[in-house]
Amino acid sequence: MLVNDDPDLKDLGPLAPGFAVILVEPQLGENIGMAVRAMANCALGELRLVRPRDGWPNSMAVAPASGADRILNSAKVFQTTGEAVADLQTVLASTARPRDMIKDVFTPREAAKRLRFDVANGMNAGVLFGKESSGLNNDDVALASGILTVPLNPVFSSLNLAQAVFVIGYEWLQTLDKIPEVKLERQKEKRPANMEEMLGLFEHLERELDACGFLRVQEKRQIMLRNIRNIFLRACLTEQEVRTLRGIISGLVKPEIEPVD
Amino acid sequence: MLVNDDPDLKDLGPLAPGFAVILVEPQLGENIGMAVRAMANCALGELRLVRPRDGWPNSMAVAPASGADRILNSAKVFQTTGEAVADLQTVLASTARPRDMIKDVFTPREAAKRLRFDVANGMNAGVLFGKESSGLNNDDVALASGILTVPLNPVFSSLNLAQAVFVIGYEWLQTLDKIPEVKLERQKEKRPANMEEMLGLFEHLERELDACGFLRVQEKRQIMLRNIRNIFLRACLTEQEVRTLRGIISGLVKPEIEPVD
Repeated sequence: MLVNDDPDLKDLGPLAPGFAVILVEPQLGENIGMAVRAMANCALGELRLVRPRDGWPNSMAVAPASGADRILNSAKVFQTTGEAVADLQTVLASTARPRDMIKDVFTPREAAKRLRFDVANGMNAGVLFGKESSGLNNDDVALASGILTVPLNPVFSSLNLAQAVFVIGYEWLQTLDKIPEVKLERQKEKRPANMEEMLGLFEHLERELDACGFLRVQEKRQIMLRNIRNIFLRACLTEQEVRTLRGIISGLVKPEIEPVD
Repeated sequence: MLVNDDPDLKDLGPLAPGFAVILVEPQLGENIGMAVRAMANCALGELRLVRPRDGWPNSMAVAPASGADRILNSAKVFQTTGEAVADLQTVLASTARPRDMIKDVFTPREAAKRLRFDVANGMNAGVLFGKESSGLNNDDVALASGILTVPLNPVFSSLNLAQAVFVIGYEWLQTLDKIPEVKLERQKEKRPANMEEMLGLFEHLERELDACGFLRVQEKRQIMLRNIRNIFLRACLTEQEVRTLRGIISGLVKPEIEPVD
């Protein structure tokens, strides 16, 4: 489970382990700072940044963080969204726009219950937030096992980044003391796959699909890849199942028994 | 019931009638604008301003309102908090600090249920938000029938004005389609008192308490007044009961039947 034990964070109180806020290509330092202030309000301490536009650290983020700049200081920076979610088992993508993907859609309240449940069961969870101007791109959304959408005024949905972070953090806090009693009875061999394992599966599969020409129609390639990923992501695979699937792919590509004819 | 039927507001969709957002002495126009953006997200359209520091209208509010400036344009300005809540029956005061007042304390979720219930029963409701630097003063809080406090990280509670507005608006939206089935069976003569009537009662009572010397210890005056107001505010009086109480006060002050002795 993610535990941020940086002693500098102590004065923000105990911060939630197991729940990462992942900002993908955030543009303005001020907005990162305000998102961090929202995190501190909700006792969330794990911040990950994917390709922040103006680099990192960014002095513009300090004042808006309103004293919670210690979360800024412990932020981790990644070059790809895939790397940023590699050690997570549950990833939700925050988006206001409907996407043509078959994924579970969670309200913040339902998402918080799901995240709390998973974290209580020893998993690492995270929520992806896109850049201020345009949100997450479809490839980032495709990495998530579910979509987080805030139900708002249907003709005026215009949350800023900090408010989007705040609303899921707020709902997360409201689930405190309401952790589901029932813990998953997982055997060691039934550990849920983390995203690194899922991405390993996808890359393996896609490499083979490219090799065999399945993805040769270039204009359909991206949407096909996304749809395929979604199938497996929705399935909430165990680590064992991932290995099984990879074995199947390898087996199909290089049959040990050559056809007789 | 409050209905904002300004045709200019049409493109924000149907806005909630019966629920006013009241900003008391807001300082920065930007913050008013961001609060309005939060309101539009939550389909709230009724904005009231008490003594905005930089006057009104304020051009600094327009850009942060993010297209919802039509709510700004229909905002009503008041010189006192009392006037701003005069036509409301249910008033909650948003405050992060505990106050030494005996009032119900609501989380945003509980507050939203209460407000939704009252509005569904034909009452007007509102939430008071104080200035950015110091929040509501105790006299403003004393006008409220309950306190609204957002449960946050106990060692880092630092919501900005727009987020405070947003969280109650968000919870209000989440109660949609969950309006309690049971409507209050109020007779006409049991109409709940509005704040104008309550303030009329308080002023009447306090005038008489001043006159009779009850409030002569000047350093205790304010706290005594607040405590007295709280007693009646907690009681959720009907309009008839207010008239009865005022009759009692008048009667006590000027007994029609002179004592015989």
